[in-house]
Parts: sequence; structure tokens; C-alpha cells
Amino acid sequence: MSLRPALLACAIALLSSPLAAAEQSKGEPPKYKSAQEIIDASPADAWRTLDPANTLYLELETGRVIIELAPQFAPEHVANIRTMAREHFWDGLSIYRSQDNFVVQFGDPDGDDPAKARSLGTAKKKLPAEFHRASAGLKFDRLPDPDGWAPQVGFVDGFPVGHDPKAGTTWLAHCYGTLGAGRNNDADSSVGAELYVVDGQSPRQLDDNITVVGRVVQGMELLSVIPRGPAPMGFYEKPELRTTIKSIKLASELPEAERVPLQLLRTDSKTFVEATEARRNRRDDFYKRPAGHIDLCNVPLPVRAPKN
Amino acid sequence: MSLRPALLACAIALLSSPLAAAEQSKGEPPKYKSAQEIIDASPADAWRTLDPANTLYLELETGRVIIELAPQFAPEHVANIRTMAREHFWDGLSIYRSQDNFVVQFGDPDGDDPAKARSLGTAKKKLPAEFHRASAGLKFDRLPDPDGWAPQVGFVDGFPVGHDPKAGTTWLAHCYGTLGAGRNNDADSSVGAELYVVDGQSPRQLDDNITVVGRVVQGMELLSVIPRGPAPMGFYEKPELRTTIKSIKLASELPEAERVPLQLLRTDSKTFVEATEARRNRRDDFYKRPAGHIDLCNVPLPVRAPKN
Repeated sequence: MSLRPALLACAIALLSSPLAAAEQSKGEPPKYKSAQEIIDASPADAWRTLDPANTLYLELETGRVIIELAPQFAPEHVANIRTMAREHFWDGLSIYRSQDNFVVQFGDPDGDDPAKARSLGTAKKKLPAEFHRASAGLKFDRLPDPDGWAPQVGFVDGFPVGHDPKAGTTWLAHCYGTLGAGRNNDADSSVGAELYVVDGQSPRQLDDNITVVGRVVQGMELLSVIPRGPAPMGFYEKPELRTTIKSIKLASELPEAERVPLQLLRTDSKTFVEATEARRNRRDDFYKRPAGHIDLCNVPLPVRAPKN
Repeated sequence: MSLRPALLACAIALLSSPLAAAEQSKGEPPKYKSAQEIIDASPADAWRTLDPANTLYLELETGRVIIELAPQFAPEHVANIRTMAREHFWDGLSIYRSQDNFVVQFGDPDGDDPAKARSLGTAKKKLPAEFHRASAGLKFDRLPDPDGWAPQVGFVDGFPVGHDPKAGTTWLAHCYGTLGAGRNNDADSSVGAELYVVDGQSPRQLDDNITVVGRVVQGMELLSVIPRGPAPMGFYEKPELRTTIKSIKLASELPEAERVPLQLLRTDSKTFVEATEARRNRRDDFYKRPAGHIDLCNVPLPVRAPKN
């Protein structure tokens, strides 16, 4: 009777369980290496260090969520968000929406009421839409796999993107962990004060329809378990059901001892390309039929503590 | 200052918020109807009633999760699961794994230990793999959109599926809410005692690699918020962190008064086709660029209480 807890374990998730490096006999064809084995053998220069000036710490009672901002895609929004973080705009506000299989959303729950709304301080009250940008000047690490939502997909500086070579535009894709700026019907109605994080099946229909400002690189499991709001679209009628935000700060504003040093696998590294291929065509003992494909939002983006 | 909680609301999620039916002026081109408007106007015969004999109630302290079984795809596993439900196999067992952006898994946490493992009762101890089945005899409601994981995708009896016309096979796809049978490395090592539910980005690499037995049709938000396990792959070292399963029962075993009557939108209905098209090409005030595409696992599968 072998069907047991450990099974789906060893079974399903070779992606997350390091395999013991097997001995390779001489003369035999090269043994399949799992993504984890490839990553474990990566050279130091396959990794980049998270820039504290582009890093937000969202502090909850349950811990710290770490966000990488993408100023190369949304310079105006990111500048505004940096200002608001410095001026403590979000401190004491809340996650006031959690819709299952979609997003958590946070900011000022009283923002609609001019009498109660928190001041934006010195942040700008009006910004242009930053849905996409010109591809020129970006290094596009293309994923060869077909995609239904965009002519081409891949990564720029570690962020999943859609890319239209004909139009010459590139935009950040909505994957699990993507951070976007809520807006009204007008394209230019976001300022970065109201933010959402995707925690369900990638809602790619939003791509190039809203300004994306970054993505969560650590701590998603603190956001994804927030109880879903009982009101339509996951809002909470009762303020006491909301999750308080202790603070949102720029890592660069904290003393170095209070920062979490993190490294991210470079999406232009050989390691990344090989690890992605190992996931696209799994040839371990569990998989009976390698998929021969991987979707943009299924590609893991490894993060680690720096090695000494 | 218009950027506020209600915004991402009216903004993002027209998919879930009923729009007031707008007046249509004479002589103008037909107004765009949202998916919700199309569904609200559906005829009675666009809906099917959930069959109690194919319905599991997973009872947690927080409420009831409702599962539709798929005997047309996994007859042996579903028969075994029905037997185990009748014999109270899962009652008092637990959800012993919750891995972020992947699955929750439940069954017997002591199953690996012959001294402690719960008996399977009269259920079979060995079953064949039921990864896919012959397409003959199935009504395949094809989704016209391209898919990277399968030659064709669509729905059979309301379940998302992959389909290979050349091989003549069809299989249940791993989308949010999919229920599968955990197995060891051997293809035929599952019996349905250990089950997992997908609660992250669709892990389609598992398609046709594991036996899928059904999907959650109501109550996903009770599973998706279960705190992620701290051990590798989301397991909990400490038993007290596990979530107790009060019971798993077949709806048909309960008195009618204790059942939840549910209807599901038929995937072969005109309403479903039109609602899916309204989501593929959104032309409301929020979307500036209709996607022109929808992925299999992004297609909502509406469920409602029966209308009187």
C-alpha cells in the first residue's frame, strides 16, 4: 500500500525538491538533470542582487512581503510609489480586498471619501498611463514557447513580459505575484496609491490594460492566504476583517542590518535557460509524458539568500 | 482624486460585477453585452443540475467544499472514492499539505506507516492509471483559442480538457480547482485515497501524467486560504498545524434537505459560447485593448442556485 503523503510529494514536485546528484557512468548518454540540480550548480554570475532602491518591504503582522519595483516599465508610477513609501502613505492602512483566484488589493479603504481620505503628500496627483513601453533599450530574453495572449513572451530584467515586435512595444505580464496599480475607467487614473497583487490564475487579459509596477519576490504565501472578502469582488464590508498594513518602506531607507539580502536568478543566464528546458521536458521517474511546453507564468523565477 | 478602493473594483472585475442593463437606442449597433449580462439572460436549458451521486461534500470547520466527480474520465478511481466516502475513510483525517501557488493535499497523514495507516476498507488496493481516455463517446466543446500544452482544448460535460485528435485521446486539464489523485512514481500507484486540489497557476505539465478525478465547483476559497506548510513542498511537520477534515460524503448519501442544490452552466450552450466571447474580447469602458484570446483555465465555469 504505497499511496501516501510522501507520494504526491516525490511525485509532483520535483521542481521544488533537490534531487541527490546521481553518479554518471562513463560512456552513457548525459543523465537528465532536474531544474534544481542545474540551479544548484549555477555559477555566481548567474545571479543578480536585488537593488534596495527598487525594493519595497510590505510589513504585515504575519511577516514581510518583498517586492521588486520595475522603474524601467513604469518610471512615473514607481517614482510616486517611492515618494509615498518615504512619506509613510500606507502605514496603518489595509488590505481591504481579497478575491479568490484573482487579487489582493491594498491602500486607503476610505480613499473614496474626501473627508476621510489620507493625503498623498508630495506625491503626484496625476500620472500618465504606463501600460507598455518602447522595446528599444530593453534586453528581451525570449521564451520560445507559443503564447495566446501576446505575439512573443519572455523576460526583461527578470520580469515576465509580453512583446510585440511589430509595434515595438513590451509590457509586464500579469502572473502570480505581479503588482499593479489600480485605476478607474480612465487609462490615466492611477497614481500608485491603490495596489493589487495577483494571487490566482494569471489574468493576462489585463496585460497592456493597466500599469504594472513590479512583482512580489518573497512572501507571496503571506498574501495568498488572506481570507477572501465576503462582499462582491472580495471586499470586506466590516473594517475589522481587513488586514492592517504595518508599513510599506523602501529597503534603501532601512539600515542595512534590517534588510533582507536577496539574489535572483538572471533570466539571461545559461542556468535559467537550461533550468527552464528541464521543466519544459521533464525526464525524471515521475513524468510519463514530458509536456514539451511551458507557459510564461509557469516559469519559476528562483530567489535565494546570497552565498558567502 | 479618484483612485480608490471602488476603482480596481469597477475597473478590473467586470467579469464578476453585474452591469446594469443599459438602454439601447434604436438604430445604433448592438451594444456590447458583458458575460454577466449574457448569463443573466440565459434560458433555463443552458444549465444542468449537479448529480448528487457524482458530488462530494468535503466538510471543514470553515464550511463545505463541493466537488463534482468525473467518472467518465476516471471510472475506477471515482468508484473507489465513492466507496471510501461511504465508508468514512477521510472523516477525521486532514489536509496535511498546502504549497503556495500549487496544491492543497489531503488524506491520511500516517498513510506511510503501516502501523498507523487507516484501512482502505472494501476499496480496491490497486487501480489502473486513468490519465486519459478515448475521445469516442465524449461530446467535446472545443475552445477555438490556441494552447501550448495540448493540440486542442475545450470542455467535456463542463470539465476543462486537453484533446489530441490524432491520438484520439482526451484528458482532464489541471486548472484552478482541479481534483487529482496523488501517486508515487509508478503510473498505477494511485487509489484515490490521497487527493490534491490545484489552488495556484495551472500546473498543466501534470496533464495526462496523473489521474484527475473531478473539480471543486463551490468553496475553493475555503481551501485556497489554508496556511502554507512550513516544511518543504508545503507539508506540516507539526500535526496541530494540519486542517482537520470533518468528513467527506457523497451528496447522494445525505437526506435531500442537507444537500446544496446547484446548477452549472452547460459548456455546450449558446450562453456559454457567447459569455466566453464577451470575455475574450472585452469592449466595456475599462478595457482599452481587448485580449482577443482566452486561456482554457481562465474561462469561468458559472455555478448558481437553482431558480424557482
